[in-house]
Amino acid sequence: MTTLHLPLDRSSEHPIHRQIYDGLRRAILEGRLSPGQRVPSTRALAEDLGVSRLPVLTAYDQLLHEGYLEGRTGSGTFVSGAIPDDLLTPPPPGARAPARRVGRVTHSAPRPRDEGGLGPFRMSLPALDRFPHAIWARLVARRARMLRPADMAYGDPAGLVALRVAVAEHLRAARTVRCEVEQVLIVSGSQAAARLAATVLLGSDDRVAMEEPGSPLIRAALGAEGADVVPIPVDEEGISVAALQRRGIRVRAAYVTPSHQYPLGTSMTAARRLALLDWAHREGAWLLEDDYDSEYRYVSRPLGALQGMDAHERVIYIGTFSKVLFPALRVGYIVVPSALRQRFVDARETFDLFSPTLYQLALADFLREGHFARHLRRMRGVYRARRDALLTGLARHCAGRLTVINADAGLHLAVLLEGGLDDRDLVRRMAARGLTATPLSICYTGGGGGGRSGLLLGFGGSTERRLLEATRVLGQILEA
Amino acid sequence: MTTLHLPLDRSSEHPIHRQIYDGLRRAILEGRLSPGQRVPSTRALAEDLGVSRLPVLTAYDQLLHEGYLEGRTGSGTFVSGAIPDDLLTPPPPGARAPARRVGRVTHSAPRPRDEGGLGPFRMSLPALDRFPHAIWARLVARRARMLRPADMAYGDPAGLVALRVAVAEHLRAARTVRCEVEQVLIVSGSQAAARLAATVLLGSDDRVAMEEPGSPLIRAALGAEGADVVPIPVDEEGISVAALQRRGIRVRAAYVTPSHQYPLGTSMTAARRLALLDWAHREGAWLLEDDYDSEYRYVSRPLGALQGMDAHERVIYIGTFSKVLFPALRVGYIVVPSALRQRFVDARETFDLFSPTLYQLALADFLREGHFARHLRRMRGVYRARRDALLTGLARHCAGRLTVINADAGLHLAVLLEGGLDDRDLVRRMAARGLTATPLSICYTGGGGGGRSGLLLGFGGSTERRLLEATRVLGQILEA
Repeated sequence: MTTLHLPLDRSSEHPIHRQIYDGLRRAILEGRLSPGQRVPSTRALAEDLGVSRLPVLTAYDQLLHEGYLEGRTGSGTFVSGAIPDDLLTPPPPGARAPARRVGRVTHSAPRPRDEGGLGPFRMSLPALDRFPHAIWARLVARRARMLRPADMAYGDPAGLVALRVAVAEHLRAARTVRCEVEQVLIVSGSQAAARLAATVLLGSDDRVAMEEPGSPLIRAALGAEGADVVPIPVDEEGISVAALQRRGIRVRAAYVTPSHQYPLGTSMTAARRLALLDWAHREGAWLLEDDYDSEYRYVSRPLGALQGMDAHERVIYIGTFSKVLFPALRVGYIVVPSALRQRFVDARETFDLFSPTLYQLALADFLREGHFARHLRRMRGVYRARRDALLTGLARHCAGRLTVINADAGLHLAVLLEGGLDDRDLVRRMAARGLTATPLSICYTGGGGGGRSGLLLGFGGSTERRLLEATRVLGQILEA
Repeated sequence: MTTLHLPLDRSSEHPIHRQIYDGLRRAILEGRLSPGQRVPSTRALAEDLGVSRLPVLTAYDQLLHEGYLEGRTGSGTFVSGAIPDDLLTPPPPGARAPARRVGRVTHSAPRPRDEGGLGPFRMSLPALDRFPHAIWARLVARRARMLRPADMAYGDPAGLVALRVAVAEHLRAARTVRCEVEQVLIVSGSQAAARLAATVLLGSDDRVAMEEPGSPLIRAALGAEGADVVPIPVDEEGISVAALQRRGIRVRAAYVTPSHQYPLGTSMTAARRLALLDWAHREGAWLLEDDYDSEYRYVSRPLGALQGMDAHERVIYIGTFSKVLFPALRVGYIVVPSALRQRFVDARETFDLFSPTLYQLALADFLREGHFARHLRRMRGVYRARRDALLTGLARHCAGRLTVINADAGLHLAVLLEGGLDDRDLVRRMAARGLTATPLSICYTGGGGGGRSGLLLGFGGSTERRLLEATRVLGQILEA
């Protein structure tokens, strides 16, 4: 065990726990602490530093949460074998980066109206049964009782400062997003963010590239102002930059889901990320990075956002609380390059002035008081178990009838149907049995026919038992 | 005193109080009860009908609220001298309707960013000090504790049915809006409603007419999709239909504030309303009626909405809770012709999916449990007193330096400045003394210079004492 050099500055504007976090993180990234190395116990480090144990616990918690440290039951805390930031250093030009899957993302699901409801397989639904209802209700009630006139009057179109500060801190720490608080705007979710970006960035003569397949609602948002939405195929590494280049000029922006391609579930490789950033820089195009459910990954640790790798301020980063908390909250955020900030704020004001204040206040409390980080951490195990149950059920009841494309991350997985089955027809038959799936074909431009036939199966909102039972029913339907 | 024929049907889906209300209202409108006539006491009528006194009180309450009945202290309840619905029967063609001022409306104020804050004269601000905080906090807390999974998941883009039912009932009864529940959509306020209407109704080659002067933010919303916003002057009777006609073809829609012109405060006469409806019908154009603060009128009773006079489904009716409750709620509504409904719902979904559920639930409770009607009624006296205080203060401290244009309705009044004063400069000097006024000139196309120099003085958000003091300070500034 090394003695750590962790200079603390009590007059700093950064709290002690943040300084401990920063010091440990730096020591790990600079190699002063090596993968597999054991770190001091929180009690020992607190004594060394002459501080209480609380800030040390907070710092360890965050580092465990982000994957810098890992705990082994009964034997202490260790530096992780693989460090999340390793992709942040671009490989030398020409070198092929390891084709390892990184991070993931999704966003507002297509919501075919006839397949609504909260049945098993419902897309984009978090584990509402595991949400900390009592804590949330207490925070909301407290803020509702305390509402001051300023909280009831007109709010800032950019969002409540306290919430923007908390979001910026979270994004910097957990998603390696590089941002100042001023760049963070609070909006009504990722749909609203995409719609807003379309208004600010796209004229009616412009083209905007979108991953094919992709979310029909996002496609509608991007084309809402008359821009031509150009479908660009996604391969195993992510959106095809070669295809983007072939589309030539006037592609003003490209919408991508690098961490978890929506809907197929693949992750963009490091090489593809760099090629995409390079394309955007050369063309002067914008990248809309929708990084929604990036917090959940089951095969390796979450990796940084595309935004954090971007040296030229071409990325507009979009996220939402719909899937880490719950959709009816209607709070998301957008991180914009400083040069675009005022145009985004003005457009947002023209749309709907500002977001409701009460939820922004309660949410800022929820983040600041640590409930958010705790909830995220707890949900990781919950979703992994649900995903495993779904995979087990599919293998047991549906083998030979469908193929799972990717189940590494997020709250849903995509499967391809064998034998020329019409997925929209299948979804209707599933709905009749109480199952709420989404057909894959509606995610292709034109809405079906041309695209692949498959199912998007959400597993976030259903218990393991319910998912196992649902796959049994799905097996019967496929059999029939 | 007549014996009233009020047949009650206990098996009806309408509650007893509603049947009593309907029966009395019909008797008044059909002339079976005449203006000035005394109606039975609630106790006597309850006995006559063989019901408890509660439903009779509820019905009388509503009729008093809407101006069908009036109470004279110590002498009972009487049919009002002037009946709100008298404009609903159009005058015979050619006949000139009385130039009486009717109803009023306003909406999201221009919010010049440098003059923010909650100082006296802040526009569009209700009496937050008189809001029933405890009741509201209780309803919100109750709903937050009770949130079911369905309330946390994805909601209906059209809005929560319970709230739409309550809004439709309110609009039918209080604003003579003709609508089915299906036509009511819940949105984030009147700004969002105008922005949504622009997306649905206007292409980039279209023209949209807007009252001149008008709200800069609404002007931005109407032009956001590339439509050409054509300013149409407002005279003493309202928007100039002659000027509209001169603009020729391709005016797809006209945005109007018939009940309370924003910002000047005039009300559209009945004759002008009929001419405008006639124009829209002939041209196949849409009328966007923004009917925000129509609940408050000080010189005569509120009159019906333009929408209720329209026989051809040309009116899109917009309202908001921002000014009757509080702006940070972010809940408004839009009533659309049935033929347009699906397009509005689809566009709304593309914008931001749906409105946060919790506030919709709490607001539905607030309306259903009668708190809303009570609050509206109480505020009428509060705002009248505040308006009177402002008028008194202006007469006392600013006489000869400015002219009040109109103070009949709403939460603000407009004044014109004498002697060529620059209103934007004056507003800056007022801000330095803690006063939050809005310059009138920014409401003209181009944002100043060409328009009239004046001030928009909000009185809703300040107490009488504060308004009197503020006018004294304004007098000193004008003197300097």
